[in-house]
Amino acid sequence: MVPLGERSNDPVLPDPPQGPLHVARARASFPWKELALFWEGEDTLRFKKTIFSALENDPLFAHPRGSRLSVEKYQELNFLRCKRVFEYDFLPVGDMLGSLPKVLALIECLGMYDWSLATKFFLHVLTFGSAIYSSGSERHFKYLPKIFSMEIFGCFALTEVSHGSNTKGMRTTAHYDPTTQEFIIHSPDFEAAKFWVGNMGKTATHAVVFAQLYTPGGRCHGLHPFLVQIRDPKTLLPMPGVMVGDIGKKLGQNGLDNGFAMFHKVRIPRQDLLNRSGDVTPEGAYVTHVKDVGQRFSESLGSLSANRVAIVGMSVVNLKLAVSIALRFSATRRQFGPTDKEEVPVLEYPMQQWRLLPYLAAAYALDHFSKSLFLDLGELQQGLLGKDRSVRQAELGREIHALSSAGKPLASWTAQRGIQECREACGGHGYLAMNRLGDLRDDNDPNCTYEGDNNVLLQQTSNYLLGLLARRDQGGARIESPLKTVDFLDAYPDILGRRFEGSSPEDLLDSSVPLAAYEWLVCYLLRESYQRLSQEKRSGKSDFEARNNCQLKDDAVALVDVIAPPDFILDSPIGRADGELYKNLWTAVLQGNKVLERASWWSEFAVNKPVIGSLKSKL
Amino acid sequence: MVPLGERSNDPVLPDPPQGPLHVARARASFPWKELALFWEGEDTLRFKKTIFSALENDPLFAHPRGSRLSVEKYQELNFLRCKRVFEYDFLPVGDMLGSLPKVLALIECLGMYDWSLATKFFLHVLTFGSAIYSSGSERHFKYLPKIFSMEIFGCFALTEVSHGSNTKGMRTTAHYDPTTQEFIIHSPDFEAAKFWVGNMGKTATHAVVFAQLYTPGGRCHGLHPFLVQIRDPKTLLPMPGVMVGDIGKKLGQNGLDNGFAMFHKVRIPRQDLLNRSGDVTPEGAYVTHVKDVGQRFSESLGSLSANRVAIVGMSVVNLKLAVSIALRFSATRRQFGPTDKEEVPVLEYPMQQWRLLPYLAAAYALDHFSKSLFLDLGELQQGLLGKDRSVRQAELGREIHALSSAGKPLASWTAQRGIQECREACGGHGYLAMNRLGDLRDDNDPNCTYEGDNNVLLQQTSNYLLGLLARRDQGGARIESPLKTVDFLDAYPDILGRRFEGSSPEDLLDSSVPLAAYEWLVCYLLRESYQRLSQEKRSGKSDFEARNNCQLKDDAVALVDVIAPPDFILDSPIGRADGELYKNLWTAVLQGNKVLERASWWSEFAVNKPVIGSLKSKL
Repeated sequence: MVPLGERSNDPVLPDPPQGPLHVARARASFPWKELALFWEGEDTLRFKKTIFSALENDPLFAHPRGSRLSVEKYQELNFLRCKRVFEYDFLPVGDMLGSLPKVLALIECLGMYDWSLATKFFLHVLTFGSAIYSSGSERHFKYLPKIFSMEIFGCFALTEVSHGSNTKGMRTTAHYDPTTQEFIIHSPDFEAAKFWVGNMGKTATHAVVFAQLYTPGGRCHGLHPFLVQIRDPKTLLPMPGVMVGDIGKKLGQNGLDNGFAMFHKVRIPRQDLLNRSGDVTPEGAYVTHVKDVGQRFSESLGSLSANRVAIVGMSVVNLKLAVSIALRFSATRRQFGPTDKEEVPVLEYPMQQWRLLPYLAAAYALDHFSKSLFLDLGELQQGLLGKDRSVRQAELGREIHALSSAGKPLASWTAQRGIQECREACGGHGYLAMNRLGDLRDDNDPNCTYEGDNNVLLQQTSNYLLGLLARRDQGGARIESPLKTVDFLDAYPDILGRRFEGSSPEDLLDSSVPLAAYEWLVCYLLRESYQRLSQEKRSGKSDFEARNNCQLKDDAVALVDVIAPPDFILDSPIGRADGELYKNLWTAVLQGNKVLERASWWSEFAVNKPVIGSLKSKL
Repeated sequence: MVPLGERSNDPVLPDPPQGPLHVARARASFPWKELALFWEGEDTLRFKKTIFSALENDPLFAHPRGSRLSVEKYQELNFLRCKRVFEYDFLPVGDMLGSLPKVLALIECLGMYDWSLATKFFLHVLTFGSAIYSSGSERHFKYLPKIFSMEIFGCFALTEVSHGSNTKGMRTTAHYDPTTQEFIIHSPDFEAAKFWVGNMGKTATHAVVFAQLYTPGGRCHGLHPFLVQIRDPKTLLPMPGVMVGDIGKKLGQNGLDNGFAMFHKVRIPRQDLLNRSGDVTPEGAYVTHVKDVGQRFSESLGSLSANRVAIVGMSVVNLKLAVSIALRFSATRRQFGPTDKEEVPVLEYPMQQWRLLPYLAAAYALDHFSKSLFLDLGELQQGLLGKDRSVRQAELGREIHALSSAGKPLASWTAQRGIQECREACGGHGYLAMNRLGDLRDDNDPNCTYEGDNNVLLQQTSNYLLGLLARRDQGGARIESPLKTVDFLDAYPDILGRRFEGSSPEDLLDSSVPLAAYEWLVCYLLRESYQRLSQEKRSGKSDFEARNNCQLKDDAVALVDVIAPPDFILDSPIGRADGELYKNLWTAVLQGNKVLERASWWSEFAVNKPVIGSLKSKL
């Protein structure tokens, strides 16, 4: 059999259409089909081809998508497309664990088509579905077939209006009532409303809701996940006591309906507590096999690490699409030339190469990192499912947490900057919505924020590395890890003694030279941070005492008063001069949903004088 | 009379509303009203207050605006608002030259409300209006009252589909026909269609069109501006021979209708050549007082320098709005704290300060730069109007060209990065469209591109500085300029001999220390560039010969083929695998305007097989 890469016009790797790019393609120093085969593998290539062909041949997936649609039409189409993807059943759920490269390829293919679609699909099947599977127990498995048939449609409700990063600060409550064997889910006020929940805005029938679990007598056992029905699957009307709606237009991913929900003493059966890490007996006693509250909480949030790994892959897809668009544009857009008559492709200018080629390289490098990290994650999750309680399993968990906490910022910021550079490198044409660079930028943006703000996450990785150094420093433990990503740090005193030895341009092109420089830099920064931290600890200062420059904050507020226009002109609920952050935001969200009119019995959560509404009515 | 800043609750500087920000405000180390008075001056403050109050009290300016509206509704509202701004006549045109700070304040106020409005207004009154005033002659002044009453509505048509930066490559033609004393305006093909022209999409009745002027016998005299009527002012239907339409949705500024136009042998009177730098006699002879073609062209493009200065101001406005939103959010958003009960505003974290405060400082620094550059520009334009042909006037023109060519990139990129940082610093809430950071980012984006791509512009400033160095090196001329911004460079050999002398943190806080470091760095980079350039010139290489790495370009195209999905999935006219850049783009634009159906007589410009249309019809 002739290998795939060498066959002429194999449908899996068809020849590109003839056109102005053909000349460059034909002159390349390597056969691109061979590289594609090496890079993806024949199996994955065929799998991707199946998905792409299905979408291309199905009228439901015809253009338009993204910002070229109204939000309402986009959300409607996106829901129908999500349902259709379930029907195609490209990768049966049972096969997922056994074929991780295909899971990643499925994320990539759906995301290359549209992140709103991919996110909607995976929030339901992976985030919601696996929360039930891995945080629940056998009594919850009855839900799984309904999930995979889309009889019920789910979402994962953790974030609240006033708390995101600080998950421990969540204030939704679940009081157990032994007389009826029910939990009472309740939102104390609108600042504790669940917020940003993907699929919750218009389509979800069920939510995994995180709430503080209280047993009779008033003892709080911390945040636990509960399965709560929020809408009637037939009518999609809210269930009694549930105020649920869409949070409004976002910068991107508007095909996805992000929602909010408040619960007014909503009663659910005792069995709908997802009880993997803690349970309540019919009489109201709390039982758990995990003694530590922090660990219990971490267990129920295990899926967040998986989400971060997925975001690395999502960011890479965005970068791949953006550099593809910008490089093809640059190889055909001609401007200026050696004579007035002859113009050359802008990609021949060193400036354009300097702007774009590093991002092409980054797309390849991060693509490889994403794939290998995804496989490592698979190993970790196999261990979790097999209840592996070995030291190696625990260390693998910590290492992957550290890798994904640094990998998500690296990938999402590189994509953010890369897309921006691509947008600018395409000039005005890059600013036309039809050319998609805007949608890519907007859809990529939340990768910097959700599942942990990038800046906050980086501190997680720092803490991991500083902890390894402390163990070596204090107990003499070797610095090593299951995936060996930190092993080189054990030689850090030697590495810090190294000196830069490159002397010619050729030396610098040898990859070992920048690698050595990188190792030195990591060791240097780590030692500096470690020494500063030790010093502060010795001086007895807590993290919070270190902040003694409140004057800066106060002056900043006054400096802003000088340059900010009146609230009406500034037109931003979170930027109003009174600083009533949540009240202003909540008013605007409710107005968008007409909830004030619809649910007057919720008046205690409404905020008086809806400014935006009264202005609108002037028109 | 009590000074404005000290009067309690003066309507010009009212006390901010009470709320959570009040505490910080009251603790600031300075009275913000006094700073506001110092920063803006009482006159400007009152002027701004007048504008803001007018908009706030007029129902036409009530919410919503920006991305929360459909493009059609937004464009309609924006046109009505633009007309209303004319009616308010905040700053009568006759007063503009005499009160430059108010012109800048008017740009700022309208832009703070919405850039689509400000751009629409100023494209008509300043770009179109002053092109007629400064490129035309007395025979054109009859148009001015019609412009200021909005009887006619104008646009400035320079850019074409295939040429932006390379203005000399424009291919629209204007052949003079002495038999009828008319110019025949013609677009040879769709790649020469005027494109991106603000106001042209739906509303302009007249355009200043740049075309290559040919006299009988076929001699080309280069690009000249012509006044061409493109629509009937009553019906807004296109004039005969004019194909005009909207280029489609953009990433931002969608209230502005950017358009395209092709001309099919459109005849205009000889008098509608804007003849300041060159004219044609009734018999067809070309006459000019400017001998050099390049200089003639520069003269007719003089307004571009003014536009760049305006863009500095526009970028600053965006940065001011973004930091206002993000800092007020950060001063009230609480997350984590020294105890589980007590949470602190995120602005108290050094990380958040490190992210945001430099942009607050940049907003102030750039605001000052913008204002002083605007006044310098005013001096230049006074000289131009007074036909000042002194050496100083010419050098002032070059200096302001260099300052605006570096200032626009500095301001627009700082705003771009600042808005992005603000978006991320507000977490999820920053990703909600209602909080405006997305609109600010999208509306600011073209500041990096129009009136010269930032990267290309920076080379203009380099050339200016290198030229000064060459004059000193070769002829011993002092390095100096009318505004004295380059005078320090004359001492560059001494400056390069300086060594860094700061030794304590206090030294570094003395502003002379970073200033000295900056001077050294500029001198160092300038000398390095100069030496490298001289070397290349000595070796006889032309700029274009230096590019000998075409292999990189070809390999990049093949590397993209490996990672790009099929065209249907990639969904970007400029990124399609065939590289038929303009054909794909043009097809999509025409489809968006249904021009194919409407104007079958234009079939020679249409492109066969409109892919997007056929896909749409599948739905």
